[in-house]
Amino acid sequence: MKMLHIDSSIRGPHSVSRKLSAEIVERQTALHPRIELTYRDLAADPALHLSGAHVEAWAGGHVEGAGLSCDLETGEEYIAELFDADIVVIGAPMYNFSVPSQLKAWIDRIVVAGQTFTYGEAGEVQTLLPPNKKVFIASTRGNIYQPGLPTASLEHHESYLKSVLSFLGLHDVTIVRAEGLAFDLESKNAAIRKARSDIASMTG
Amino acid sequence: MKMLHIDSSIRGPHSVSRKLSAEIVERQTALHPRIELTYRDLAADPALHLSGAHVEAWAGGHVEGAGLSCDLETGEEYIAELFDADIVVIGAPMYNFSVPSQLKAWIDRIVVAGQTFTYGEAGEVQTLLPPNKKVFIASTRGNIYQPGLPTASLEHHESYLKSVLSFLGLHDVTIVRAEGLAFDLESKNAAIRKARSDIASMTG
Repeated sequence: MKMLHIDSSIRGPHSVSRKLSAEIVERQTALHPRIELTYRDLAADPALHLSGAHVEAWAGGHVEGAGLSCDLETGEEYIAELFDADIVVIGAPMYNFSVPSQLKAWIDRIVVAGQTFTYGEAGEVQTLLPPNKKVFIASTRGNIYQPGLPTASLEHHESYLKSVLSFLGLHDVTIVRAEGLAFDLESKNAAIRKARSDIASMTG
Repeated sequence: MKMLHIDSSIRGPHSVSRKLSAEIVERQTALHPRIELTYRDLAADPALHLSGAHVEAWAGGHVEGAGLSCDLETGEEYIAELFDADIVVIGAPMYNFSVPSQLKAWIDRIVVAGQTFTYGEAGEVQTLLPPNKKVFIASTRGNIYQPGLPTASLEHHESYLKSVLSFLGLHDVTIVRAEGLAFDLESKNAAIRKARSDIASMTG
């Protein structure tokens, strides 16, 4: 078995999503002791913004410059890692109601027609990824965005990730959430405790 | 009067959002002949992904390296341009159900506490932007995402932009939409014709 662990918070040691994603990895390793781990820190080593030059290269065009060439290789590695992983753990803080742009740049490299998905004869989307992958998202956010609250319509974070993952046929998605982290310290600590308890009680 | 025109498509001369945003600018210039124009091509000249170093610099920390220093200046220019603009025109293609990461990077520079918004005594969000700005979004997408369709839940593009803009107190937002652009050529041309007709009939 293989596990892909991705972090995207820019807050380094102050990041709650990093702490939680690491705890999910630890818990999953306890559940699957021989699992092989690949780690990607998208904040320390982000992909470039997707550009016209990337799209041209995908279409077989000339690749100009070592920076682009290296970045295209990174994108291929992202896809290979996703193909290989039985379990994907994503540390995903909310920045301005959505995911960090580094995580969007990762998404723009893994959602590639002909590589991770294709269209069937009737135009329906077909995933090209192997089945039975499990995804865990360590979701953190400063405010609270539960359905029914006035803030709910601002939420393009978990809902966005789940949309993209479902498009790729990844439907087994578990969210571990710590929210309201920008409120007082007591609320923050309670939210983190709840998330850690959710992780500790994982049985699969 | 001032107008800020932003493009974010990576498709250069093949981009429909660029054609439409340019037509909106042309129409608005016809309606407001003395308007002063600022143009930002976020694909040709994107901001870096927001990083821990940016946040440290905002908090008064040390700025290491010319790249970061230059990028911080770009972010300040983004905010100054937004403050100044009476009209903002955004060319926004949908990439993987959301905005290009370059446009997310722009958003991550303009949504800055203490600069474009603040919190009131009761914790409520207060915009710091001058009132009465009008925003036009040239929205393009390959598929169709109207409410009621199975695709609607995947839509984190216009809805995301409107969320962020409303957070900043920008509520006067007009969407010019061309969608279904990945269907047959006839559908594509019809969608573009409709959008161009919407632009031509703008009276304010």
